[in-house]
Order: sequence, then C-alpha cells, then structure tokens
Amino acid sequence: MKPSIPKGTRDFNPEQVIKRSYIFDVIKDVFQRFGYQPIETPSMENLSTLTGKYGEEGDKLLFKVLNNGDYLVKADKEALGQRDSTKLTPSIAKRGMRYDLTVPFARYVVMHRNEINFPFKRYQIQPVWRADRPQKGRYQEFYQCDADIVGSDSLVFEAEYVLIFDQVFDQLGMEVTIKLNNRKILAGIASLFDIEAHFVDLTVAIDKLDKIGPEKVSDELRKKGISETAIRGIEDLLKTPHYDKIKEVLRDDPIGSKGIEEIDNVLKYLEGIEIKNNVEVDITLARGLNYYTGCILEVKSDEFEIGSLCGGGRYDDLTGNFGMKGVSGVGISFGAARIYDVMEALDKFPALSEGVLKVIVVALDDACHLFGFKITDTLRLAGINAEIYPSPVKLKKQMKYANDRSIPFAIIIGSDEMESGKLVFKNMTTGEQQKLSLESIKSKLKE
Amino acid sequence: MKPSIPKGTRDFNPEQVIKRSYIFDVIKDVFQRFGYQPIETPSMENLSTLTGKYGEEGDKLLFKVLNNGDYLVKADKEALGQRDSTKLTPSIAKRGMRYDLTVPFARYVVMHRNEINFPFKRYQIQPVWRADRPQKGRYQEFYQCDADIVGSDSLVFEAEYVLIFDQVFDQLGMEVTIKLNNRKILAGIASLFDIEAHFVDLTVAIDKLDKIGPEKVSDELRKKGISETAIRGIEDLLKTPHYDKIKEVLRDDPIGSKGIEEIDNVLKYLEGIEIKNNVEVDITLARGLNYYTGCILEVKSDEFEIGSLCGGGRYDDLTGNFGMKGVSGVGISFGAARIYDVMEALDKFPALSEGVLKVIVVALDDACHLFGFKITDTLRLAGINAEIYPSPVKLKKQMKYANDRSIPFAIIIGSDEMESGKLVFKNMTTGEQQKLSLESIKSKLKE
Repeated sequence: MKPSIPKGTRDFNPEQVIKRSYIFDVIKDVFQRFGYQPIETPSMENLSTLTGKYGEEGDKLLFKVLNNGDYLVKADKEALGQRDSTKLTPSIAKRGMRYDLTVPFARYVVMHRNEINFPFKRYQIQPVWRADRPQKGRYQEFYQCDADIVGSDSLVFEAEYVLIFDQVFDQLGMEVTIKLNNRKILAGIASLFDIEAHFVDLTVAIDKLDKIGPEKVSDELRKKGISETAIRGIEDLLKTPHYDKIKEVLRDDPIGSKGIEEIDNVLKYLEGIEIKNNVEVDITLARGLNYYTGCILEVKSDEFEIGSLCGGGRYDDLTGNFGMKGVSGVGISFGAARIYDVMEALDKFPALSEGVLKVIVVALDDACHLFGFKITDTLRLAGINAEIYPSPVKLKKQMKYANDRSIPFAIIIGSDEMESGKLVFKNMTTGEQQKLSLESIKSKLKE
Repeated sequence: MKPSIPKGTRDFNPEQVIKRSYIFDVIKDVFQRFGYQPIETPSMENLSTLTGKYGEEGDKLLFKVLNNGDYLVKADKEALGQRDSTKLTPSIAKRGMRYDLTVPFARYVVMHRNEINFPFKRYQIQPVWRADRPQKGRYQEFYQCDADIVGSDSLVFEAEYVLIFDQVFDQLGMEVTIKLNNRKILAGIASLFDIEAHFVDLTVAIDKLDKIGPEKVSDELRKKGISETAIRGIEDLLKTPHYDKIKEVLRDDPIGSKGIEEIDNVLKYLEGIEIKNNVEVDITLARGLNYYTGCILEVKSDEFEIGSLCGGGRYDDLTGNFGMKGVSGVGISFGAARIYDVMEALDKFPALSEGVLKVIVVALDDACHLFGFKITDTLRLAGINAEIYPSPVKLKKQMKYANDRSIPFAIIIGSDEMESGKLVFKNMTTGEQQKLSLESIKSKLKE
C-alpha cells in the first residue's frame, strides 16, 4: 500500500512548522498587546450550528461527520428511498467541521454569556475546514487567526484594527496597504440610485472590481436588472473613486452620510499616530460576506500580487442567530497561509533559531558513548539544545548526519579525550576544531 | 435556538487556553532541547490509512467524514439495500479524523522518506478524535504531545525518554514515578510457562493488574484456557514482582534474557545522572497496545490518584503497514489533559503572565478619549499590554470592567490631566493613586 493524504490537505515539515509558528507568534503577541484573550472551540460543531450561516454555497462546502455506530437505523427512510443525499445528510450526520472562527465565536459568546465580561475581546488561532475544490494555494484545511470584540459599538476598535494590521506587518517586515470602507457608504450609493433592493447585487459586483474592471461590473449589474441610469452613475463613481468626491455626493443621504461619519471618526483616532504602512479609504472595497453592516477592512500586499492578506468588519447582529439580539461585533482575520506564501516568495523569513539543534556529541566507542550521554545531558540542563548520535558508529557516518541536519557544532569523544577531560570541539561551518574542557565548551555554546 | 456543542467536546476559555499552553510550552522546550523537530499532519487522513491500525474496537471509534456532493451516487447499493452501516461506510466516507499521532507519523515517514535524514526525531502536538462514550475526564477531542524517533534501534533513546519525563515533570513541579519494562520480559514469562500462544491474553490481563488485583488477573487467564500450573506460576511472580527475582528466573530464557539485557543497558546510561523523580523497573507494566515489541515506559503521579500521565515504547516495525519494512521506532506520548487535571487539582500552576493585560486607560470625555487612544498606543509600542475602555462612559462603569478583568493598573484621564500631562496612575489592587508623567508611568509598568 502506497500511503497518501486526502486531496487539499498537507503535511508540514519541521521548517514549515517553525516558519508558520513564527507568523502565529507575531500575530498573537500583537493581539495580546491590544488586550485580546485566547479561546479555543471544538473542531466539530453541531451541524445545526453551522448550517445556513454561510449561504447556500457555504452549506455545500461544510464537511459533515458521519454519526457513529449503526447510523442507518435512524436514517431518513424517505430520503434513502429517493437516494437524495442532501435530504439524507441531517439524519446520518449531526456534526460538522468548523468552517470559520466567527460562527463558533458567536455560539461561544451566547453559551458563556454569564461568565463573560463585556466588551469581550478574544483571539483564536485554529484550523478550519472547507470542501473547496483543491487548487494551488487553496487547501481544505487551513489556519485562521481572528480577533473579535463583542458587546461594544465604539469605533475605537476599527481604529485599533488599523494599528494591529500595521504593527503585525511591520514586525513581519512586509509592506502593505490597509483599506477601509463602510457598508453604509455602499448602502448610500444604492439609495442614491434608487436600487436599495439590489444592495447585495451591488456589493457582490463591486467586490469583483479589482479582478474584472468597471465594464464587467456594469455588465453584472445589468444582468441583475438595474437601470442604465443607475449603472452609468455607478460607473462614473467607480472610475474616480475619491473619498472626497463621495463625501460630497452622499452629504444629504441619511445612511451614506452615517457611513462617512463613521469613517471620519476612525480617521480622527488615527490622526497624529505614526503608521508605517499605507492606510486608505477605498469606497470600492465591498468584502463579499453579507453580514457586515458597518466599517470594513482589508489588507493587500504592496510587494506581491496575491489576494487580500486580511479582512474584517463590523456586524451589528453577531449573535442574533443564537438568540442574543442586538449585540454588535467587529473583528478581523489574518490569512496565515497567504502571508506565509508572500514571505516565502520574497525571502522575508529571518533566521529562526527556535528549536535549532546547537550541538551533536559524537562518540568513538561504547565507553565514550556512555560518557558522552552524560555530557549531552549536562549541556541540555544548561539550556543548550543537544543530542548524542545514537551509537558509536564510524566517525564519517556520524559527521554526515550532523552535516545533513546543519548542526553548527560537534563534540568528538575518543578514549584520549575521555581520560584528559579535554574534548574536541568542532565548528561544523568552518571546520576549525579545538581541544577544550566541558566548561569552556558550555560557555562557547551559550554565547 | 439554544446553542450547544457536541457531547464529548469542550470550549476552552482564556484561562484554560493559557494554562494548557503553559504545559505545551514546557513539553515543547524539553523536546527541542533533546533535538526533536516539529511536524504537523492533516486532521483528516484517508480512511484506508487509519482502518485496521487500532484493532476492531478502534475502527469503531474512528470519526468518518462524509464525502461531499451527491455521495449516494457512488454508495454501495448492496449495503444500502441491506441497511448495513458498516459495509456502507467506505463507499460514502473516504476520509477519517486522526485517531492518534503515531499512525500519521508512520505514514509521513514513508511518504517523505527521501527528504528525511534518519534517524529522524520528530515531535507533534495536535488534537486527535475518538468516538468514545463521553464521561468525566474523557473527551472525543483531545491533544496528544508525542515525541518519536524512527530509524535507529539504539537504547540510548529509551534512556533519553526517562530524562525527558524527568525534566518535564520537574519543570511542571509535579512528582512522578517513571516505570520501565520490556515486552520481551513478558514474552519470556509466556515462554517460561509454555503459553506463547497466549502472549496477547497475558499482556492484556497483566495490564489490568493495578485496577483489578492479582486474583482477577488469574480469573482472566483462566477464562482464556491457560493451565492452572501456569496461572499459579504467574500469580507467584506477580505477587512479589522484583526485578532481581525475574532476572534470576529468566536467566536462561533466550527472549526473556534479551529483555533484561535491554533494560540493563538503559539503566547503565542513566547511572550517575541525577534524576529528580522515581525511576523503577516494573515487570507488571504491560501497556495494552499490541504493537510494542521492546522497552515500554509509563509515568504515574505520586501525588494524585489518576491513570497514567504518559506512555511509550519501542515498536520494531513502525512503518511496515505502509510498505517500509524493518524500521525500528520508539516514542512517548504525554497526556496533556490528565496533566492539566492533576495540576489544577493540586494547584500547581504558577501565576501565568502570558498575555495578561497590564493597564487600562480610562477617559472622562470625548477629547480625553482621543488623547487616551494615542497614549495607549505609545504604551503598546513600548511592549506593554494595554487597552483603552471603548468609550468615555461613567468612571464607575469603566472601573468595574477593570476590576472584573483583574487589570492591575489604570490610567485615568480628565481634562486637567490632559492639560498638565500628569496622569492619574492607579494601582487597582491597593487602590493607591499618583499623578505621574507618561514617561514615569511607562517605566513603572515595565518594572
């Protein structure tokens, strides 16, 4: 049997795990600096918690977990008879795999409402699963890194998210543009052209502007039955989408001007703060997901052509689906896999010392091996990552292993060294070697 | 709709996540000190990779993931007609959730054999899923922390695992006994009483000795058709299971004496090394799992009545199932959930400062809030975990939030403070407050 893994999933080798942990650690540190606390939720949720939260397309992409035991006993007989997979599923699979971190968070907040001090700031770094067709850069299992706050409608958090993005990417050594918009501005545009009923169509079409250009956006709107007057007006706005112009245009629209007021408030908080990356209001930013109702945020790389690295926004009714109405939430999500890909492509990862093996002990016979075992442990207790080659085989074989694993130093022990207490200490990079006491070697390794 | 989570799963609140991370970090640090490197494998494996690896009982406890799309099209028609769940499963679920970290590791080694330098030391800290009946302290999703080495039969690793256990539990402040045995000793006992054919029955029965006592072990053996002579002999051995006695008894048994030689070799490596916890050879240690073939290890708490905290052992043919024969492996696993429960019960967790919010900024009006926002960011850029209360509501409400979240310090800003630049700095524990410049506050917070 030749082993394989499911399509769309990946193994991570040591180098990849360490690089990814580095990204997670930077994000986690910044989240904590801003007062966010970690939670974790189960990988499996009740399917009823997940279904209907991500649109019809999302429901199809949920991984469902088969009930255990003799599941056919409780299977929907009618659905079975009709061979109707969709209808059968709820009766044979009551659990589903986490699709994102937002819905589980909303569920968590409602379940634990009595233990939580609101406003509640939480972060969560866990994998999610989606049955997307596997393709380059898109996987069925991937990590999300989310920070959300629930129980406050203060715009201070939108401003903080701009700072969080700025500080994370500054620390990662990446250059990005942080884009800001407000769904109320898009609603204002819809109201301006009397197409409120087409608000979702409008956001979905504008969301594609980057990819397909303004003409095709117009085509999409036309297909949805929007009038030519409205389309021409929208085209005109999108061609030169300056914030000042839209402020002027929407001045008297109740909902649009509210959106502008919110954006201006966010900008006021940021005034006078040194931000290393670009921040811009982009009225063509729409963010596909429909549950956003206020500010929306997105981060794009300035150095590498790739989709957005982060997204986020405000949703006025985060927990309504679970029976807790009128609670405002705002949150952001880092796409760790894309950030990894950009850093890898642009060679941005620093030399990561986490877990790097510093020294290998090489023994030339059985007695030296026993002696070397104790020395290795002494080094480890001094905080040095050290190992002994498992057996006193030929020196050449042991050195080859040390080279293949890029271990920077080796200690070589023969019977002379054991007797004199002066051990051969070899720099594997330069090839240089000296005879030193264990104490001197220890201090050299701790340098 | 009242939200809930599947039986046997858990949410982790911030305190729990931080405490658990502390345990993971200690284990990870020690693994790295010994030269182990991290890998990660997908949560979902092909069901064919998992099936048949954990015995019949294990197969039942695997979570299977329903195929996406119209899965009934490819369903086994005969099984459907017969309403045979077990027979139907392979045709509608090709993926299963990871049941442990050992089988995925073996699969990884075979798939990546050409990129790996052997001997390969890897650690892996990831959740696993088992459809066990949920009960107190037993969950369907839990973390395993494993370190394994593949491609060497050196007993140096068994000795290292004793040190790893010792150093981890020493760092965690727990007192444990590290037990050591060898399956070849058990095989020797079987051979001594001419019951080689009953070797598995023997290990399974001895494995229960702790729980059910020697009489019931004899009953179990009797049920399996083992002769009274053999049972009496085994009972006699188990009553005073001294290592010296068993050494004497098995001296001339080829397999048993090999087991003793291996144990003695492990002990020789450990001679003269200061070990903080108890280490003992326990010939009644059996470890239920059948794939172990050499040394076996187990860790028990000396302070708290609970099952084993860790287990491990040598398996001569780790990767044989995946077509790579004759490769020896040895590994250990930490049960993080049990370790957590013991530490919690005995109040062993230190005060954990990770991610603790150090200070909250409290503003008394809108202008102060804008000013406070900038101050908060200055503190954060100085490495201090800080937040501003989202809006300038009544002082009392802001202070209540600070108290509820146990934030140790508050900075209070009114218009006087804004003008003078001397801010009110309050110690939330003592209630003491002073007027200080931002610079002085910064240094106090960094102390």
